[in-house]
Amino acid sequence: MKITQNIKIAVDAVVFGYHNNQIQILLIQQKFGKKQWALPGGFVLDKETLDEAVIRELKEETGVKANYLEQLYTFGATQRDERLRVISVAYLALINPNNYILKADTDAKDAQWFDIYDLPELAFDHKDIIAVGLERLKAKINYQPIGFELLNTKFPFSDLENLYQTILNKKLDRRNFRKKLLSFGILQETDQYQKVGSGRPAKLFKFNKKKYKELEQNGFHFEIKFA
Amino acid sequence: MKITQNIKIAVDAVVFGYHNNQIQILLIQQKFGKKQWALPGGFVLDKETLDEAVIRELKEETGVKANYLEQLYTFGATQRDERLRVISVAYLALINPNNYILKADTDAKDAQWFDIYDLPELAFDHKDIIAVGLERLKAKINYQPIGFELLNTKFPFSDLENLYQTILNKKLDRRNFRKKLLSFGILQETDQYQKVGSGRPAKLFKFNKKKYKELEQNGFHFEIKFA
Repeated sequence: MKITQNIKIAVDAVVFGYHNNQIQILLIQQKFGKKQWALPGGFVLDKETLDEAVIRELKEETGVKANYLEQLYTFGATQRDERLRVISVAYLALINPNNYILKADTDAKDAQWFDIYDLPELAFDHKDIIAVGLERLKAKINYQPIGFELLNTKFPFSDLENLYQTILNKKLDRRNFRKKLLSFGILQETDQYQKVGSGRPAKLFKFNKKKYKELEQNGFHFEIKFA
Repeated sequence: MKITQNIKIAVDAVVFGYHNNQIQILLIQQKFGKKQWALPGGFVLDKETLDEAVIRELKEETGVKANYLEQLYTFGATQRDERLRVISVAYLALINPNNYILKADTDAKDAQWFDIYDLPELAFDHKDIIAVGLERLKAKINYQPIGFELLNTKFPFSDLENLYQTILNKKLDRRNFRKKLLSFGILQETDQYQKVGSGRPAKLFKFNKKKYKELEQNGFHFEIKFA
């Protein structure tokens, strides 16, 4: 079967991390061309799936492996890349930046975390792709416990609170948020404490994934409503 | 820039309609090869966007135009098509079958509606794509009023009820469903009646899209919870 089609297919990853009380995004600096900052990503190889392509590109260009990865949206405007027609399958990924030392390689000259509210100029339509990724993250943390993928295994409650406030970009009623989250029974108190700011040491919590899976199977829906 | 990549990109449409108390899906019979039933779709042209490609293919192969269209998911397994590597960007579309006479052309030998709970054998991974489409539809009718795209402009309330029951594949508490839907204030009573089954003529309703948009802008969320 002969198909004349001059379109290439790539993957790009919108990787969010939580660090220094900021929601950050992982960007690479292009080694060639305009040397702009861009999302990690690249062309799909003939023998790999889309998921395999994005995992490989992330590893090659930045040295990280995502805790959480889902397909976001496929961007197919005709003028995305001035050199040739490229359709990009974008992914949303979450990692804990504390677990990795960034290591740029292959097409990337550098790899760095940037505050999502203070981004450099970006290549292609990557600003739009990030906007779609952030919208998905904002929507999703309200009905799936994916926020925990961004935190340390053990965290003070204030980290979780601040994570939600930063992603949603608004103040939350702290008392209600705490009450709601604890009522689910998926947060486990540990016997460890951590000094946070100038206050007294705060108790550390753990997300009980096993408990969550059990509850989910019995029809439980993780759902946080913010008025 | 020279990229060696042997992958072609296609679009496929999961088109749902509601007819004869069934949720139906629009399929075409392939003109060439195995002459199997398949989703309407085809290869993306170099100068068209993905949305344009799916709209064109739907028109060419079946003669319909979707009331509602959204990108569903991109399927990129390496062995989807035994002839060559094809990545497919799948779309979810909703139409009212009563508004169209199907008309197969180009690559399609025939175009027909099938009950989603009684499908023929399908080409490629189209069965999986339909399953993903149905999941999306099931989830989405609970928080967006897209079900109305499947109904006539004026409909008896029992149609709406049956639509939800058929998509969700379960019995609903009719009294609660009616109370909930009417409480939103987005359903408008008309002064027309229609005979439904053996009962007395039923009042016809209209979906007030303008009212919905207004409410939505003021923070209203369409949300139906089924216990």
